[in-house]
Amino acid sequence: MTGLKVNRRKLLTAGAVTGLAGAFGLPMLSKQALAAGEGMEYVFLSVVTQVPFWVDHRAALDDAAAALGVKTRFTGPLDFDTAGQARQLDELIARRPAGIMIFPGDAAAMAPGIDRAVEAGIPVACLTGDVPNSRRSTFFGINGFNAGRMGGEMLAKAIGGKGKVILGTFPAPSVLERVEGYKAIFAEKYPAIEVVDVVNDKADPSYAPTAYLQAIQANPDIVGIGGTDGDSGKGAAIAVNEAGRKDIKIVAMDRNDDMLPYIEDGTIHGAVAQKSYIEAFLAVHMLHWQNTDGIKVVPDWRAAGINPLPETVDTGVMPITAENVGQFKHV
Amino acid sequence: MTGLKVNRRKLLTAGAVTGLAGAFGLPMLSKQALAAGEGMEYVFLSVVTQVPFWVDHRAALDDAAAALGVKTRFTGPLDFDTAGQARQLDELIARRPAGIMIFPGDAAAMAPGIDRAVEAGIPVACLTGDVPNSRRSTFFGINGFNAGRMGGEMLAKAIGGKGKVILGTFPAPSVLERVEGYKAIFAEKYPAIEVVDVVNDKADPSYAPTAYLQAIQANPDIVGIGGTDGDSGKGAAIAVNEAGRKDIKIVAMDRNDDMLPYIEDGTIHGAVAQKSYIEAFLAVHMLHWQNTDGIKVVPDWRAAGINPLPETVDTGVMPITAENVGQFKHV
Repeated sequence: MTGLKVNRRKLLTAGAVTGLAGAFGLPMLSKQALAAGEGMEYVFLSVVTQVPFWVDHRAALDDAAAALGVKTRFTGPLDFDTAGQARQLDELIARRPAGIMIFPGDAAAMAPGIDRAVEAGIPVACLTGDVPNSRRSTFFGINGFNAGRMGGEMLAKAIGGKGKVILGTFPAPSVLERVEGYKAIFAEKYPAIEVVDVVNDKADPSYAPTAYLQAIQANPDIVGIGGTDGDSGKGAAIAVNEAGRKDIKIVAMDRNDDMLPYIEDGTIHGAVAQKSYIEAFLAVHMLHWQNTDGIKVVPDWRAAGINPLPETVDTGVMPITAENVGQFKHV
Repeated sequence: MTGLKVNRRKLLTAGAVTGLAGAFGLPMLSKQALAAGEGMEYVFLSVVTQVPFWVDHRAALDDAAAALGVKTRFTGPLDFDTAGQARQLDELIARRPAGIMIFPGDAAAMAPGIDRAVEAGIPVACLTGDVPNSRRSTFFGINGFNAGRMGGEMLAKAIGGKGKVILGTFPAPSVLERVEGYKAIFAEKYPAIEVVDVVNDKADPSYAPTAYLQAIQANPDIVGIGGTDGDSGKGAAIAVNEAGRKDIKIVAMDRNDDMLPYIEDGTIHGAVAQKSYIEAFLAVHMLHWQNTDGIKVVPDWRAAGINPLPETVDTGVMPITAENVGQFKHV
């Protein structure tokens, strides 16, 4: 990493400062600093990369690359291959990118590789899912509990604050937190709402409709469904259509393009979306600032033995409704 | 705000794009966009502005202004004049700056003014202290409870994990959270540590030494002092010197320049510092991105009715020790 490291202040002192950039009100970077920046690559190593969920992260990687004059890349196993992701991380470290972003399929499996990357001088950020017991700089993502609270609030209002509901989920820790958020807001503000079942839809588009159809048949008196993973909403929408139960109100999670039409036609009442774009846009900026001493918390963060970046960026969530759904489509 | 708003994409289409910036690998901004950016001012309205605590925020305001080609300014009442701060906010709104950062002396007193600013099209961020029940975009600061846990861990290790201690604080909600963090880590990991008193040092440099001297005399068998506001550490250090009790281990909060020499000479064991620089550096960037549609979470965040920025940036804390104290001095 030492070879890649750009110390902007030293270069400004040592190198020939270009006057032209300054004349246009832009940051004054030396030719050397820019040349070094142009060679730097920030790689987002994800998993299940074939699903549409990553479209906003990918757009942000492109935009951050253009804004900073660096390269960015999105990669990772197509399926939920956690061992494959850990292997790819080691291959990536050997290629010495300027920084690595990771959505961990299995946090425990990724932690040793993250520490090896940081040891090799490559800063790491976690996106959407955290690896708290690692040397990553920053976690960018949502507070799942608060996301569940927002979903619960939307569902409660849609059903008039009372009645039996089911929740749909996928048993990953970050998703289960959202279930707890739903339950907490009901207990706190809507005691007349009863959660009669929590359905595992496996976050699988081909299985989810069956899971919700069976749950509706087993609990015919429900008035609402709160879905907490990206495939819950469409699965529940197909199920209520099939069961002829469009009276059941549905709240979905995320903003997959194949779910949004069900909000437009009223089958789904609303959804809770993550700000995925922010995660990748900020992560590239911050890792680049860490490499180029752009954030001057102390003169030398390596010598001080501190993390110069924020610990956590809680991006918060956005409500999608029939009124604003057009803003969430990827055209 | 409409008049000030810079839509970078529209300007790039409509205006004459300068080729020179592009040739140097910098973001291609039109002359019009740069001119508009140069006229934009981001103001940090704080309170008790006379204390040295704000030195890192001020440095970050200067650096962010240079990086973005905008103006930044630090202002606010010299003393803890919360009514004066609320008045200044209204005066500021009338002058229509591009964005406002606020450290609230009294969150309840500032909330209506923050909402008026946002209503007028001026985005607001909160720094160091939050105004959660307001329309601010983002809170940048620490989790006080976690800061207290880190302080408690440092103190516990310094005293060998056992004995009587006192904690020092100032009764503001964000500071009292740190006291709870100290107590929590002791309860969880160090049950042989007993908190025998919590001293109110009023965050007042002239009163704090007296407060700690009296507490030491009342509890002569203490082995440690954990200070949770910026004036606790130096106050406790003066008191142990005066009492001839340099055997008492002290952990301080923050990085005031007049406290750091006591870490160098060993009177204070260590301190827990906030990353104030990050708060202001990121806040100016994010408010500017909000104004210029730099973060494209949705095509039009106003039409979508959503907050395009993160909800919370938890900057985390840094341990200051005898080994790295040199990195924290403001030379």
